[in-house]
Amino acid sequence: MTKEERRESEQQGFAPKDYTDPPPAALIETSEFKLWSFYRALIAEFVATLLFLYITIATVIGHSRTSTNCGSVGVLGIAWSFGGMIFVLVYCTAGISGGHINPAVTFGLFLARKVSLPRAILYMIAQCLGAICGTGLVKAFQKSFYDRYGGGANYVHHGYTKGVGLAAEIIGTFVLVYTVFSATDPKRSARDSHVPVLAPLPIGFAVFMVHLATIPITGTGINPARSFGAAVIYGHKQSWDDHWIFWVGPFAGAALAAAYHQYILRAAAIKALGSFRSNANV
Amino acid sequence: MTKEERRESEQQGFAPKDYTDPPPAALIETSEFKLWSFYRALIAEFVATLLFLYITIATVIGHSRTSTNCGSVGVLGIAWSFGGMIFVLVYCTAGISGGHINPAVTFGLFLARKVSLPRAILYMIAQCLGAICGTGLVKAFQKSFYDRYGGGANYVHHGYTKGVGLAAEIIGTFVLVYTVFSATDPKRSARDSHVPVLAPLPIGFAVFMVHLATIPITGTGINPARSFGAAVIYGHKQSWDDHWIFWVGPFAGAALAAAYHQYILRAAAIKALGSFRSNANV
Amino acid sequence: MTKEERRESEQQGFAPKDYTDPPPAALIETSEFKLWSFYRALIAEFVATLLFLYITIATVIGHSRTSTNCGSVGVLGIAWSFGGMIFVLVYCTAGISGGHINPAVTFGLFLARKVSLPRAILYMIAQCLGAICGTGLVKAFQKSFYDRYGGGANYVHHGYTKGVGLAAEIIGTFVLVYTVFSATDPKRSARDSHVPVLAPLPIGFAVFMVHLATIPITGTGINPARSFGAAVIYGHKQSWDDHWIFWVGPFAGAALAAAYHQYILRAAAIKALGSFRSNANV
Amino acid sequence: MTKEERRESEQQGFAPKDYTDPPPAALIETSEFKLWSFYRALIAEFVATLLFLYITIATVIGHSRTSTNCGSVGVLGIAWSFGGMIFVLVYCTAGISGGHINPAVTFGLFLARKVSLPRAILYMIAQCLGAICGTGLVKAFQKSFYDRYGGGANYVHHGYTKGVGLAAEIIGTFVLVYTVFSATDPKRSARDSHVPVLAPLPIGFAVFMVHLATIPITGTGINPARSFGAAVIYGHKQSWDDHWIFWVGPFAGAALAAAYHQYILRAAAIKALGSFRSNANV
Repeated sequence: MTKEERRESEQQGFAPKDYTDPPPAALIETSEFKLWSFYRALIAEFVATLLFLYITIATVIGHSRTSTNCGSVGVLGIAWSFGGMIFVLVYCTAGISGGHINPAVTFGLFLARKVSLPRAILYMIAQCLGAICGTGLVKAFQKSFYDRYGGGANYVHHGYTKGVGLAAEIIGTFVLVYTVFSATDPKRSARDSHVPVLAPLPIGFAVFMVHLATIPITGTGINPARSFGAAVIYGHKQSWDDHWIFWVGPFAGAALAAAYHQYILRAAAIKALGSFRSNANV
Repeated sequence: MTKEERRESEQQGFAPKDYTDPPPAALIETSEFKLWSFYRALIAEFVATLLFLYITIATVIGHSRTSTNCGSVGVLGIAWSFGGMIFVLVYCTAGISGGHINPAVTFGLFLARKVSLPRAILYMIAQCLGAICGTGLVKAFQKSFYDRYGGGANYVHHGYTKGVGLAAEIIGTFVLVYTVFSATDPKRSARDSHVPVLAPLPIGFAVFMVHLATIPITGTGINPARSFGAAVIYGHKQSWDDHWIFWVGPFAGAALAAAYHQYILRAAAIKALGSFRSNANV
Repeated sequence: MTKEERRESEQQGFAPKDYTDPPPAALIETSEFKLWSFYRALIAEFVATLLFLYITIATVIGHSRTSTNCGSVGVLGIAWSFGGMIFVLVYCTAGISGGHINPAVTFGLFLARKVSLPRAILYMIAQCLGAICGTGLVKAFQKSFYDRYGGGANYVHHGYTKGVGLAAEIIGTFVLVYTVFSATDPKRSARDSHVPVLAPLPIGFAVFMVHLATIPITGTGINPARSFGAAVIYGHKQSWDDHWIFWVGPFAGAALAAAYHQYILRAAAIKALGSFRSNANV
Repeated sequence: MTKEERRESEQQGFAPKDYTDPPPAALIETSEFKLWSFYRALIAEFVATLLFLYITIATVIGHSRTSTNCGSVGVLGIAWSFGGMIFVLVYCTAGISGGHINPAVTFGLFLARKVSLPRAILYMIAQCLGAICGTGLVKAFQKSFYDRYGGGANYVHHGYTKGVGLAAEIIGTFVLVYTVFSATDPKRSARDSHVPVLAPLPIGFAVFMVHLATIPITGTGINPARSFGAAVIYGHKQSWDDHWIFWVGPFAGAALAAAYHQYILRAAAIKALGSFRSNANV
């Protein structure tokens, strides 16, 4: 926002960069299978997604039971539940697994070559299994309420077309994955001294915001594991009929966010021509 | 708050400053047109304002549809939506464009000579175009609800005069732009070690607070691009009749905040007489 | 929370301190009257308290107008308004005036010898004038609603005795001033590396929390300037009859918090016997 | 989340660690009884738990009085009250006592050998006494409302079995204590430069989230002192009948979180075989 920064950013076209990009992840890196830290990351993704679905779906069902009563947590409370849990869980797991907790985030980071293909696939499997278990816990705890109140499943709500549902999922996931890329940009620590990197908080807020806006449209997926877990446990026809929207939409949104970040904001294509690494030990 | 600091601040009248002000931006700086980073900043402002209007207006319309139901997000949820999105988007774009997302902020920073005139004008155009596109998306997604519930347009509500609406916009924008100036003050990092600079969070909260207070009066503009985008897409007579208020008010509030910061808090006029730059490489 | 820290804290009884306490403020320091920064601080306190009352009382009145409607901001929104504005304003003014915005905070810091007597008195006057102006703006903007909905004045609500109101104010202010002391403790930066000092956020949250708890009892003062400004502008008999509670309670609570911090947590009395300053340049 | 980090984490199996674990606390450490800082920590735990219960139970009772009115703080406001107070109080007491304010947290940290046995027991006693006093204040202030609205006591709500209540307490406490362990992990400061350690905020949010989800099931304990204090002061049969759930559940959840952190995430068992300390002065 200051002149200083503007200067710096203007000079980037021709000045040596004051930060180093990590090298892209190999597409397949067999060495990682030998490490305990790899399996630990899978466990952490599983547990985090389980806790995420357990807390959020329990909040949704608890709200539905008491929504005639004004004291219910309301849509605002549900949106806080999704956003706040992502804040807490990204904070807790960022150092262990990167804190994805969402196949769309994993997909975006895979496209940007931040994670290898096998890691991406196994993360998604761990996330989906965690989501099934978390939602299953809610059903086990409150079976009759769970079924009566729709099980927290995502579907395109009455009054909207499937196209609108898909578009809402694309833009919503774009907001989330764009925030993830912004928060984890290595350029950030080097240059933006006035924007310290408290990554999990804005990521959680992005999820909160998208839920406020799109709960009336699709219930808000933007996380295929969340939609898949709820569909498996609830298992009614409508949530399966619309289910493709909650994979295609988030993956398309994540791909758009990855492209926006890499080709527009980082301008990888253009800068790659003339850039050379500085020796600065940033 | 401590004595220590008070000491330091008392000595500022005659001691060399322990920070360096960046030199003021040139009024017109043609060199910036040649840089990719300039166009990237315009794209970032466009995209951020589009996402801002999409999420917030969708929240407003979704609330109006269900406001007879106690579970609606309520005015509190709407205020969170505006404030929270500004937090997320300032966080994401601060390093690219400065994170204005608001012509009033751009105007205030232009007055303080933080951005050049062409940059300020092009930012405002990008913001207004983004706002039109973001609001347009909401209308495209839910046409019937959008028109029925007022399209999120700003106007002076029943029971208030135009003068009150204008004054509310001036003070509301003052709160926002004053926070922006406080958060980006270069003196901050040098001296206030107990107030670390997490700029986007208080900026987002300032927007949240102003919305809580003035949604009943004008729906809260404090951002001419937001009001313009909603007026263009909604296009009814009242939102155009009152539209000048949502440019004059925010610009006047931003000018007052810039003056307050530069002439009272920074005391530019007085300190300029005797100040000399220290050699400290802060 | 870790063993490490516990060790450190256990050793404090006999080890040289790894931080330096600033010397206590003089009771009367005439030199500060000669400095622009002193008057600037008074202006900043005036403006901040004005903005605080304007935003919060406007939120209270706006809520009362629409409280039959479920979409109103509710008591939760009012509590956010008070807490969030304190967060924003402490963030903005901490480097200028210390960010008191509350005579009870000024009184607590005066007792702890962080500010001189004339500074404390002039701060309180500036805060009270700001509160009158801020509340006056709300009345000027929406006269009929303002009078009809009680003008945001503090009084002991139906069903509570004056003694309960006083006790609620004492404990509420204790929570706030205890947080202020904790957040600005010089020992903090030296030792608690895992609790970085983002002072304004917990201070704002403390105000938010106290409002959630005691709005049903007294409307929540914990800030004599806020109660005074509302009483002057609203001017009805009951708010003046109970008015002493909103000075005595906050001042007593601030005194208790100052004593708790100085004599229990900092253990000034005991440590003073054997402590000597380390040469560590913390 | 970046490749860089992944690399680092992969190498941990065979590379020297870049951080040092503090040595485990002795089971019984008599030396700590001789230090003022030990008694100061007990006082801080007592006062913090007193303030925690006072603010939160007052919010619960205030909500119940006005819940037919839409403006009540609602379940969302109650959840904020519990989570926000934990944020504020952990922030204030972390440097004095570690900021437990909850026997389950103390128990988890004792299992992980972060605190000695006598300290753990005395902390729990101080917390329970504080909780009794804080709840007693609420009853003293508003006797008739307090009894009529259930006194904020925890019990398994109608429609749930005791087993579900117990399971909800176990998982809820797991979320909280897992966050506490993540936030205070010494590995964090050494490696996760993009996740700065603002420990109290995610801990407070974890409490907030669990309350949103499980208030409809048990009222949410996850803190035996909170449940005990409310049961003592309210004293009705049902809150005592279910009371064991609010000790067994939280302690089991804390034990699971401690085991998860030590044996899976930190992999203490495996790494202990080959790890050696680096000389890095982290």
